[in-house]
Amino acid sequence: MSPAEAAALVAEHARAVEAELEALLADPEQPGATEAERRLFAAMRHAVLGGGKRLRPFLVRAAAALGRAEPAAVLRVGAAIELVHCYSLVHDDLPAMDDATTRRGRPSCHVAFDEATAILAGDALQALAFEVLARPDWPGSAELRAELAAGLARAAGAAGMCGGQALDLAAEGTALDEAGITRLQALKTGALIAFACEAGARLAGLDPERLRLVAEYARALGLAFQITDDLLDATGSAAELGKPAGADAVQGKATFLRLLGERGARVRLEAVRADASGALDKLGPEALLLRATLDLVVERRH
Amino acid sequence: MSPAEAAALVAEHARAVEAELEALLADPEQPGATEAERRLFAAMRHAVLGGGKRLRPFLVRAAAALGRAEPAAVLRVGAAIELVHCYSLVHDDLPAMDDATTRRGRPSCHVAFDEATAILAGDALQALAFEVLARPDWPGSAELRAELAAGLARAAGAAGMCGGQALDLAAEGTALDEAGITRLQALKTGALIAFACEAGARLAGLDPERLRLVAEYARALGLAFQITDDLLDATGSAAELGKPAGADAVQGKATFLRLLGERGARVRLEAVRADASGALDKLGPEALLLRATLDLVVERRH
Repeated sequence: MSPAEAAALVAEHARAVEAELEALLADPEQPGATEAERRLFAAMRHAVLGGGKRLRPFLVRAAAALGRAEPAAVLRVGAAIELVHCYSLVHDDLPAMDDATTRRGRPSCHVAFDEATAILAGDALQALAFEVLARPDWPGSAELRAELAAGLARAAGAAGMCGGQALDLAAEGTALDEAGITRLQALKTGALIAFACEAGARLAGLDPERLRLVAEYARALGLAFQITDDLLDATGSAAELGKPAGADAVQGKATFLRLLGERGARVRLEAVRADASGALDKLGPEALLLRATLDLVVERRH
Repeated sequence: MSPAEAAALVAEHARAVEAELEALLADPEQPGATEAERRLFAAMRHAVLGGGKRLRPFLVRAAAALGRAEPAAVLRVGAAIELVHCYSLVHDDLPAMDDATTRRGRPSCHVAFDEATAILAGDALQALAFEVLARPDWPGSAELRAELAAGLARAAGAAGMCGGQALDLAAEGTALDEAGITRLQALKTGALIAFACEAGARLAGLDPERLRLVAEYARALGLAFQITDDLLDATGSAAELGKPAGADAVQGKATFLRLLGERGARVRLEAVRADASGALDKLGPEALLLRATLDLVVERRH
């Protein structure tokens, strides 16, 4: 698959995910909503719609392509993971956290609305993620819905994304070693990326050995994603990134770049790319979309 | 049942809930946790353990007593609801929200730790609530776990608790009418109280007609709880309340007391108590614990 073909597939899936998110956010059951509630809904929509590469939902699709999965299930599970990702960005951007004023080239949620609304919008988006995953309006058995809700919760919580963000905040201005940064990223961004891959593989009905290979790929991909992010933050432009460039260095963030230097980070990136690629070799030709995703993640410019 | 007997039952159940929460919070799977992660765990424990009447978990039990339910299921569902309640208190207390420095007679989470940790602890507690409800380590079928996770998410989200908090913030300093305050409270505190009753009734395997009566009771109970809360805030002492008295008036909060005056609020309280009591009459003698809860809620001093 050529990079252009892969990018077109990602863009096509992103549009489908956008439509799914739009439908999930509409909240038609609230006819008597007051202005305050409509403002909350608007903040939730601001945080979720109109942007983002939708990498995690695409990973669900790419892993689901290893077997047979219902397209509607792939979309719903991807949308639920994206809702968690989007809520985490809203809270990460808050003044008490990373204090970021722009996101995806637009004002971050607490700037476009206010801090209290951003906190509540993030909270409500997290609840919505579990609601749309657990409820029976998509083709997933109760067993599958409960299992995925538990798995998403675990990836999102203290032993996953929230734990990683706590590590990240504590690491500001301190010198983590490579094991420390790897743990931080495995939790902060890796847990949700890994869950997206595992959820897709689960929808595809893979056997335990192939599930293990997907998990191996996902671990390496998460690391590759983060190292690329660090490199882009230092070398990209604000216009390309949709947020201020160089913010990591200003905030004294613990990054692979800071620890290893640009050359060292690139060497490390190639090593984890090779790890991910090795897992894909064992998964065989059906891993086509996962391989295209790896290439896109490593070679992206924003 | 005498008030003393009821209070003893509530206290006994609160101890069992505390033990369940303690076990759920322990996080034994994180042997390599760093100091930053342990700080996050500590903030989560601070927010959840060592206090609280555990009204919502008791409501699960009281409604479950209308039929036959596994005690372990009653405890787990109650604990999950309590985790959502506790996370909401952490976020409500934040400087950008109610800016409260004490809670349950102790420093609120962002005072005992810091603002970023409190935001993350709240987020992680919400995720934990869904994790412990959806995962299969308690006696609930996959169908039940998925259904309850979806129901809790709905009660917690934009159409429930978060929507109510948005209304509450927007109402500061404005004059809501009785319909407006009733809607605010039905969402902010009512949704979770109603879900606790409905979840207990679901565990008890009630038929639709009895489920409808429980919902009717729950709606009135939620209102009674809030009117009592408003009255206590104005007339209780800080020592009894575990938080500063009179804070609602200082913040210009929209309350039943402010709208109706003390006498009017007491009249309204008796009316909703009668509504709740009417539903209980139809439920019959098995509603013993729900009736005791109603009495305790209306007659409580803190």
